[in-house]
Amino acid sequence: MTNDIPVNPDRFLADLHALRAIGASGVGKGVVRPAYSPADIEARDWFAARIRNAGLEPRFDPMGNLFGLAEGQSLLVGSHTDTQPEGGWLDGALGAVAGLEIARAAREAGGPAVSCVSFQDEEGRFGVTTGSAAWAGLLAQAEADALTDHSGVTLGDARAVMGDRLGAPVDPGRFTGFLEMHIEQGPVLDGTTEALGVVEAIVGIRDMVITFDGQQNHAGTTPMHLRRDAFQALSAFNATLNERFANVVTPATVWTIGHVALHPDASSIVPGRARFSMQWRDGDPDRLKRMETIIRDTAAEVAEARGLEVGFGPMLGIEPVAMDAGLRAALRDAAEAMAPGRWREMPSGALHDASNVARLMPSAMLFVPSIGGISHAFEEDTAEADLVTGLRALAHAAAAAAP
Amino acid sequence: MTNDIPVNPDRFLADLHALRAIGASGVGKGVVRPAYSPADIEARDWFAARIRNAGLEPRFDPMGNLFGLAEGQSLLVGSHTDTQPEGGWLDGALGAVAGLEIARAAREAGGPAVSCVSFQDEEGRFGVTTGSAAWAGLLAQAEADALTDHSGVTLGDARAVMGDRLGAPVDPGRFTGFLEMHIEQGPVLDGTTEALGVVEAIVGIRDMVITFDGQQNHAGTTPMHLRRDAFQALSAFNATLNERFANVVTPATVWTIGHVALHPDASSIVPGRARFSMQWRDGDPDRLKRMETIIRDTAAEVAEARGLEVGFGPMLGIEPVAMDAGLRAALRDAAEAMAPGRWREMPSGALHDASNVARLMPSAMLFVPSIGGISHAFEEDTAEADLVTGLRALAHAAAAAAP
Repeated sequence: MTNDIPVNPDRFLADLHALRAIGASGVGKGVVRPAYSPADIEARDWFAARIRNAGLEPRFDPMGNLFGLAEGQSLLVGSHTDTQPEGGWLDGALGAVAGLEIARAAREAGGPAVSCVSFQDEEGRFGVTTGSAAWAGLLAQAEADALTDHSGVTLGDARAVMGDRLGAPVDPGRFTGFLEMHIEQGPVLDGTTEALGVVEAIVGIRDMVITFDGQQNHAGTTPMHLRRDAFQALSAFNATLNERFANVVTPATVWTIGHVALHPDASSIVPGRARFSMQWRDGDPDRLKRMETIIRDTAAEVAEARGLEVGFGPMLGIEPVAMDAGLRAALRDAAEAMAPGRWREMPSGALHDASNVARLMPSAMLFVPSIGGISHAFEEDTAEADLVTGLRALAHAAAAAAP
Repeated sequence: MTNDIPVNPDRFLADLHALRAIGASGVGKGVVRPAYSPADIEARDWFAARIRNAGLEPRFDPMGNLFGLAEGQSLLVGSHTDTQPEGGWLDGALGAVAGLEIARAAREAGGPAVSCVSFQDEEGRFGVTTGSAAWAGLLAQAEADALTDHSGVTLGDARAVMGDRLGAPVDPGRFTGFLEMHIEQGPVLDGTTEALGVVEAIVGIRDMVITFDGQQNHAGTTPMHLRRDAFQALSAFNATLNERFANVVTPATVWTIGHVALHPDASSIVPGRARFSMQWRDGDPDRLKRMETIIRDTAAEVAEARGLEVGFGPMLGIEPVAMDAGLRAALRDAAEAMAPGRWREMPSGALHDASNVARLMPSAMLFVPSIGGISHAFEEDTAEADLVTGLRALAHAAAAAAP
């Protein structure tokens, strides 16, 4: 057993609240600090000063990802400090400040070697986790620079605002692994007495638009048995799918019809067309594939039985990312040490920077509860006792895993 | 048995084709002749000339409804000559020209007394069947004049274009009853070998917006069993409703969910709100009421079981209009005489001028088949043999019913 890194919970919480003040907005502990905004850059400058103050080396890479480097080989710990357009104080900030505190405390204690990081644009102003994606080589800089936000600003112009802060790329080879703590952003832990979740995998996502084409008709003169009603097809598809999935899914699998467009979408007209989104997520690529087969077969059968045509749009997807076995074991040991019997293993249903960093090095994640499961909203919060339990467990695992 | 009115099918068809040439547009036999448009007024002037030529008295009332008056007490036969923005050649025109031919032939034969009519704005450029509604006293002239079309033109300004054509109101007291022939605008007759439909009732309509309010959530981090998904509630409501209606409806009852709006309507977000239209139609007011009870109970039960709130918008409705028993009997006899064994009794799922005129006098309707059930489209059509069978049957019934 390695000695723990002697983290300072008060200093950690004070830094979290100091960071929260930058871009504080909306109700409660709300924060508005989108990537590359003045508030985001101010937060990064504050974070760089804290890094320097801790005796670590602050370094911005070309995307504006901010590293706090220990000397030589080190374990990397962190997350991101940008927020959603209407965000909470912990989404990203928790993991970044925990990384800062662990790296700082480790340096004060004379080891082990821990660096910290705040990735840029995790919330996807310009795409999906673009800062860590660029660092991981999944997104070329020229390609990244051409991405635009909703108002048409390019990422290239946005990062130019960071000026001469931006430096050379940081070599991933100097890190032996990556740990990321994050709020769960869902209701699972909050519904229990558990304080921690050790992430098994970041789930894969499949997303497809499906269309039923039937016959638009007068809603008064068309008898029920002669209708080819696209909404009725959608409803029947949904009901059958829910039944058939029961034999395939786990309690962690999710699927969603979140978008529906009927045509012509009028109360007096039998809808001739229904276009809808079908999204499903799971940590197991085989299960994602089995679900796809059921979706396609069910849609085709419903269309055939009711005299409609079915169309499938392109399948978009993100592959599941399994967390590193060794780091997961370290997090399990740490969770049991800091919250005996009050933790579980669970998938992450949301994407995180760790999805990208896992391409470069062993990576793993730790969750703390989200009150009411709320995230991406000003109301997002977590009990401070849970934040501290998370910090201690993460430090315990970092001590075991760091070189 | 009364002697038949000796209608002339060739003259009737020639008039129908002459009328079709006014506003001919689009593909096939398409017509664009919206109420009060230059083409509509040209068609009314043509119709007035044909009336005068037949020895009847043409008379425009203040709305632009055009009557072809026989002397003294008479039976009124007709429909309308305005069309949808993209209409067919028979919707309205068939019944108006059939009225002209029957009134003309009756006058030539020395009796019985039959008048004809072309109502204005049946297709609702300014509302719903506004011309016959105003004549029937269901819509005051000042109220009618304030109605606007989609581009903001008032009915008052639109009818002013008809200038000094417009005359005094026509006294409904001079008519003993009203017969209207119309294309079915649905697929029922076309799917059989039947040539005629005797309308039992013009169905009533109930229309209500229903809302399920659940909880908007992240589609990745919210487990299925913790979701309060508004689309899933809608789908479950629809499935249960279809089952429960089975014990209440007749083959002529229809119900439609034609409009659906999810919020926020995104593929990655569990929908927190579903707002949708629920419309149902039947000729029996009691059945409409029983269906309403089932709808409200089912929506409330589904919401309760799934932890959502349900909201019901105001109930809009049009009452069913039963056709006059005596005129229906005359039409049944006429149908059996002209198409033995090839006719049925059926409801009208669409509204017609007869809905309004029935407030003033005994009224009934006769349907001929619509090819493919198509209406409100350029492609609308009916075999000419069916048009002539309809004319003969309507004339037979008129001979029996006229004073």
